This record gives sequence, structure tokens and C-alpha cells, in this order.
Amino acid sequence: VKKITSESNPLIKEYVKILNGKSGNKDRVAVEGFNLIEEAIQQGFSIETLFYSPGVASGGQASGLLNRLPAEVNKVELTERVFKKIAQTENPQGAAAVIACPDIEWEKVINQTIGMAVLADKIQDPGNMGTIMRSLAAAGGSTLFYTPGTVSPFNHKVLRASAGTIFHIWIKQVTKLEELFTRLKSKGFISAASEVKTGSDYYNLDLTRPLLLAVGNERWGVSDEIKQNCEVKVNIPLARGVDSLNAAVAVSVILFEARRQRSAGLKR
Amino acid sequence: VKKITSESNPLIKEYVKILNGKSGNKDRVAVEGFNLIEEAIQQGFSIETLFYSPGVASGGQASGLLNRLPAEVNKVELTERVFKKIAQTENPQGAAAVIACPDIEWEKVINQTIGMAVLADKIQDPGNMGTIMRSLAAAGGSTLFYTPGTVSPFNHKVLRASAGTIFHIWIKQVTKLEELFTRLKSKGFISAASEVKTGSDYYNLDLTRPLLLAVGNERWGVSDEIKQNCEVKVNIPLARGVDSLNAAVAVSVILFEARRQRSAGLKR
Repeated sequence: VKKITSESNPLIKEYVKILNGKSGNKDRVAVEGFNLIEEAIQQGFSIETLFYSPGVASGGQASGLLNRLPAEVNKVELTERVFKKIAQTENPQGAAAVIACPDIEWEKVINQTIGMAVLADKIQDPGNMGTIMRSLAAAGGSTLFYTPGTVSPFNHKVLRASAGTIFHIWIKQVTKLEELFTRLKSKGFISAASEVKTGSDYYNLDLTRPLLLAVGNERWGVSDEIKQNCEVKVNIPLARGVDSLNAAVAVSVILFEARRQRSAGLKR
Repeated sequence: VKKITSESNPLIKEYVKILNGKSGNKDRVAVEGFNLIEEAIQQGFSIETLFYSPGVASGGQASGLLNRLPAEVNKVELTERVFKKIAQTENPQGAAAVIACPDIEWEKVINQTIGMAVLADKIQDPGNMGTIMRSLAAAGGSTLFYTPGTVSPFNHKVLRASAGTIFHIWIKQVTKLEELFTRLKSKGFISAASEVKTGSDYYNLDLTRPLLLAVGNERWGVSDEIKQNCEVKVNIPLARGVDSLNAAVAVSVILFEARRQRSAGLKR
């Protein structure tokens, strides 16, 4: 077992770079906490390096995890001091990992996109982005597309808000917007832009068809280019005097209405 | 016009105390930003003190606000330096206020509670608490009850996440739980505890009746005492492998299903 006692160790420096999105290699994520690590393993992702603090090495959940990891995983014990340096949570559990998260080819993502997908257009808040992932996975959706200018889906705050669901869905940046809409349309998807105070009331739409739901920036909403590509605009009617919903809540309300309609086998 | 150039001025010290929930007088809230202040005025709350930075005093939104405020409002110009000290946002707009927010009598709250209410039971995350307020107000609900141990609804992060909707709804701490359930039941309310993986699927419940929805702590859920008082347990069916939703999302999905059922005049 390797031990690291200095925060200037290259493995620690690289972990912090990945955490801050400053590593040259973008195909890895830095995660903290047993639940996230276990979730990644369960979903078939490879652990490159596992860091743990001495306090947990003898504990139940930690030793269980250590024993189940394949031999090729780099297991590294840190001193409590070094672990606290890299920890992002207030009460760190004593486990962190670098996980291989390779970018997926466009064709593969398009082929695997079924049922429900979200297009996040310049969402800024990491909590919103992670909560959108969590709701999308929970509603049975397959794919989160995002435009350049959106908060990185691999940001550690996003990961935490996703509650591990980042490992349940396909995640892909979209640079060819028109192709996304054309390809999904040919797969039978309806595309809808989430709007405020304009468009069809969400519960009056037939959401039993495969759905691509576009959600925009917290302040400015969905960009014009995406609006023009969407077949419908979808609105959630709100009580008088209230302007809008939280972006992640709006997505969730619409996705769960789609799930409700499908589970009931409803047609309009 | 009063000017404050030092952060040790008593008005500034008191603002910071209110911000941190450390003022002896609990009936005031500290808010920042034009939207929140305008929302409070529109909903009939009294501004006690308005702080603004010199940079905005000549600007459109600020001077409009200053002119519309009654004469008895204490208007105080701060230096940029002092304003930045009290500002909680990264790009402060240059306006902050102390707003009178008196505690409401129990009888009045019970009488005014109609349609939909939420009972927040030890919710910890300020973002979740504020988002629950925003969704409750947007769904047309009237009242947010909360148990001791819940994050303060007047915390500045909660206020920001509420997007001003804190001024649209009644907010009351509950110490007499049984009385809450008895009184609302006699007003025709159904009480439901939000659960994970147990209880009735939310879309199979008749939510056209007035609804009290209890939502629990992010980790432990609704406390046993509240569960026992609730008539039904309500569940949101999730895709396989996903354990739970964000607490604010779960509340929102159920409240908007209630709103959908009511707008459609549905009965089961």
C-alpha cells in the first residue's frame, strides 16, 4: 500500500487539477465519498486511483470497498492532514477517487438516446445542473446534452448534487445543434423548449412520445437558436404574481409528467 | 440623506446581525437586490432601512425605488467599500434593506391556510428551503409550516433561493404538531407524508382536496411523529437504480400534480 504524506505529491496535485477542471486529460473525474464511488463502480466505471484516510481504513464500509477493488486500482493512503486538504465537504468521509469517464462518441450517444433526454443550454448553477441529472435519471431518461457555456457536468458541486446519477446517464456536449434535432426527430422524438408564460401547458401535451426537453440559462432562458429548432414551447402555468420556477424544478415537473403519462398509458 | 462611511456604524452592525440570524429582534429580515426589495414592497411589507451604494443612486432602478419609498423609511447611502462588506452576492446590485417581517399569530395562520401547505421537517439545505417556498407559491399554495431544527426561512441563502416568494406565503414555525393536523383536518385538508419507495403513487391520490404535504430532512426523511399524524404516505415512483429525488424537487412534483388535477377539475 502506497502512503502519501505531502500535499505536493504529484498524485494529489493531479487530483486537485481534475477537481478544478484544470487537468489536461478531460476524461477523468474526481469524486469524494463512498456513495459516489460505489455508484460509479456499480455502473461499470473504472477507478484509477482510490485515496483514503487512515481513520477509515479499518472501518466497515472502507475496508469492504478496498477489498472489492480490482488489483490494478492504485490504492493510496493519505495522512488525515493531506486528506482534509483535498476534501471538498465539511465532514469528509475519508474516501476519494479518480474515475475514468471517457468522452463518448457522438454516434453512440445518439443511438443510445431513448425515452427522454434533456438539452441544458448554458445552465450556470452547479446545484441546478446536478439536480437536473438526478431528476432525469430518476424519471428514466437516458441522456443529458449540454451546450458550450454550460457549467461543467463534472464539476464537483454538480457531481454532489447529482447524488451519483451522473454515472446513470449519457452526458455529451453538443456543438452541432441542428444535427442533434434532426437525428432525434428521425428517431421519433418531440423537441420542446421550456418557456415562461408562453407555449402549451405541459399537461396538455402528449408526452408519451420520446422527448427532448431544452432548458435554458437561469436568467435568460433557452437561446433563440434552440427555440427555433424546437417543435413546441412548453409552459408550466404558475400562480399570479410568481414569475418563474427554479430551472431544475421546471425540468423535473415536466419530466415527471411525461413519466406519469407513460405509466398510465395515456394518450391525449 | 444619511451617509455611512464606516462598517462599525451601528446600523451596519445590526444589518449583519439580522443577516446571520443573531439579532435579538427576530421580526426583521435582511435582503439584498432590487428584485427582492421590490417584491417585499409589492406584497405590503414595510421597509425599515434602505441601504444603497453611491454608484446606483443616480441609476434608473435605484432612483425609482428611492422615490417611491415613503418618507418614514430610513434611506442610507453607503460607500462602495462598506456596501461590498455587507453584500452577500458576488456582483452586488447596490441595494439592500431591513424589512419588517413580524411573526404571525397561530390563529391567523390557521385561518389563512387554504388550498395547499407544506410542512418542512428539519430541512437543512438553504437552497432546498428557498426552492420549496418558490414552488409552493408558484403552485398557488398559502403556507409554509416548519419544525424546530429546520434551517431558518429568513436565512439570506433561503431568501435568495426563494426568488422573493417568501413575501407571497405565510411562514410559521410549528411547536404544536398535533394541533396543526387536527385544525387543518377540520378544514378539510388531507395530510400526506412524502416518502421514498413506500406509500401511494402521487398521481393515484385525489389531490383536489386541500393538501398539507410534509417533507423531511434530506437524509432521514419525515420524522416518525409526523408520519403518524399524516393520513397518507405519498411516493414518487423512480427508475430502477435511483434512490431518491432532491427534496425540493419531490415537493414540487407533488404540488404541481395537485395543481394539474385541480385545474383539470379531475376526480379520481
